[in-house]
Amino acid sequence: MKKYNFYAGPAILPQEVIEQSAKSALEIGDTGLSLLEVSHRSKEVADIMEEAKTSVYELLHLNDNYEVVFLQGGASSQFFMSAMNFLGESERAGYIDTGSWSTKALKEAKKFGQAELTASSKDKNYNYIPKAYQIDKDLKYLHLTSNNTIFGTQYQGFPDSDVKYICDMSSDIFSKPIDTSKFGMIYAGAQKNLGPAGATLVILDKEFLARTSREVPTMLDYNTHIAKDSSFNTPPVFSIYVSMLTMRWLKKHGGVEGLAQKNEAKAKLLYDEIDRNTLFVGTAQKEDRSLMNVCFLLNNDALVDEFLAQSAAAGCVGIKGHRSVGGFRASIYNAMPQEGVQVLVDVMKSFEEKHG
Amino acid sequence: MKKYNFYAGPAILPQEVIEQSAKSALEIGDTGLSLLEVSHRSKEVADIMEEAKTSVYELLHLNDNYEVVFLQGGASSQFFMSAMNFLGESERAGYIDTGSWSTKALKEAKKFGQAELTASSKDKNYNYIPKAYQIDKDLKYLHLTSNNTIFGTQYQGFPDSDVKYICDMSSDIFSKPIDTSKFGMIYAGAQKNLGPAGATLVILDKEFLARTSREVPTMLDYNTHIAKDSSFNTPPVFSIYVSMLTMRWLKKHGGVEGLAQKNEAKAKLLYDEIDRNTLFVGTAQKEDRSLMNVCFLLNNDALVDEFLAQSAAAGCVGIKGHRSVGGFRASIYNAMPQEGVQVLVDVMKSFEEKHG
Repeated sequence: MKKYNFYAGPAILPQEVIEQSAKSALEIGDTGLSLLEVSHRSKEVADIMEEAKTSVYELLHLNDNYEVVFLQGGASSQFFMSAMNFLGESERAGYIDTGSWSTKALKEAKKFGQAELTASSKDKNYNYIPKAYQIDKDLKYLHLTSNNTIFGTQYQGFPDSDVKYICDMSSDIFSKPIDTSKFGMIYAGAQKNLGPAGATLVILDKEFLARTSREVPTMLDYNTHIAKDSSFNTPPVFSIYVSMLTMRWLKKHGGVEGLAQKNEAKAKLLYDEIDRNTLFVGTAQKEDRSLMNVCFLLNNDALVDEFLAQSAAAGCVGIKGHRSVGGFRASIYNAMPQEGVQVLVDVMKSFEEKHG
Repeated sequence: MKKYNFYAGPAILPQEVIEQSAKSALEIGDTGLSLLEVSHRSKEVADIMEEAKTSVYELLHLNDNYEVVFLQGGASSQFFMSAMNFLGESERAGYIDTGSWSTKALKEAKKFGQAELTASSKDKNYNYIPKAYQIDKDLKYLHLTSNNTIFGTQYQGFPDSDVKYICDMSSDIFSKPIDTSKFGMIYAGAQKNLGPAGATLVILDKEFLARTSREVPTMLDYNTHIAKDSSFNTPPVFSIYVSMLTMRWLKKHGGVEGLAQKNEAKAKLLYDEIDRNTLFVGTAQKEDRSLMNVCFLLNNDALVDEFLAQSAAAGCVGIKGHRSVGGFRASIYNAMPQEGVQVLVDVMKSFEEKHG
């Protein structure tokens, strides 16, 4: 039976990317060697690294004012690395708290400088994106989490500001066009819209980067990795390779602009059903709903296990909600086909026929 | 034509590990999903993480006094993490400098405490392992690099000492039995004897671990990862999976004890030819020769390119030496079959017939 992967992350990848990745794990090109065992100094890997980097520039329409590196350690490492590199002990940075990941980012930043809570949606269990707040011009940066996987909220736009944003885009990068000029730094763990776990994409505005001052371990200094084109030490070759293939796939499907249309249509299909179906209710405020992670509850808690079982029987994997919200979470990243969302919607409809 | 992978790292993996990895990249078990896209909270990944950890205990005969975690960032991240976690500002640690990687480890440690050079073989371009030195009882630890990929030297044993060792075993872990009781910490980037780049194995003595004091970012604290069984954040699932398969393969082939015999036989075959053949000379002092990375030169520099071409024609990939030593380097890790070494030796013999 065809399976539809609704996991929040690691998450669904395009089928052709999976097939090509498996092929290269067996043999890369006609080298007679697996991609898993060739030197990072080989021509094969150098070409992969170059195409991965170039593709980021191309897909996000980045100009030469930006540096692009692939690191390790996930977004969780960027929580402290961003502050370690950019926030002096006596300098101030603002943090918008929109859920668990934002909270963690703030916690780590406080170890390095005056990291402050600028706004939070904790009062309503993070079911919305805060909007009414002032951005102090003295802030070194304002940290945002553009999409919140656990609570199913997403920034629909980024307000104009004199202060540069540092943004965790792990779960919605490459899902829609963004005005990158507002960002001093963008980071994203690969394992949502990009590739398997193990690689972290970091995009840095050169002007913003010039403000770094603290002496840090060599491996934690962004300049180290920029100077060596992400190969100061052995990079996570296979994760970067799969990410590169995903970016090739993105370009073939209209880039982030093309994907944005598809993502809107998929999300509309599912949210419309949640709003229509008498058994279900969405958890996020409508204007802040995520196009990536759709969180919803059953009005009747006693039916949760039965709905999970029926979804699984239809091939829908990974829709159990995070314990912080409960209910269900359907993650419908770039690689999720409309067809997969339709299958889930059909389960909801037949569930209503039985229990409605 | 069959290719023999002599790369220093990322390096050769067992063929059956490669084939199973490629298969799981397509579909893990009968889930209908690729291993690249399943959640790290799924049963499939939980089982992989558990078997990977258990296998380390089993292969190295570790008792409950040790913790085992899989991290990201390579050995290069352990250079600073080990000092950040274990070396107080006013505390002293000793470093034995046996090449580029040791030098880097010392450089990073100096940012955290009184890291001192205890001994070095730099005077002879690192062609030996220092032996005549005192280990001061006041040292928090003594840092070693057990095998030096660039210079082809390897510790043949570790002297008894009251001071615990912290050891970078990236390039010879699992290649022979070791008395782990001497080590406070052992670390190894996966990409030599274990798996593809992206995972780092860290083994910690609990008693040694208890001495950590400095407040560090959450992601850089070993205790974070121990408490969450290497899943505090999304682990590099695929790299750990391939490493787990390699450990399965190791167990099938007699464990580290069985591999040690094979590794000795392979190294003897190649070193004997280097010593016998009138055209070649080994670079490392005989008593410190590495069983993993065999470095050798041609007496006549003018023939280097021709030898590289003839080796390549015979299927030997990656034997060009590191620029710090020149000549040739044949990396013959666990997964290199005796047959591959024989092919290289045969090229050396026929090269002598032509040019001797």
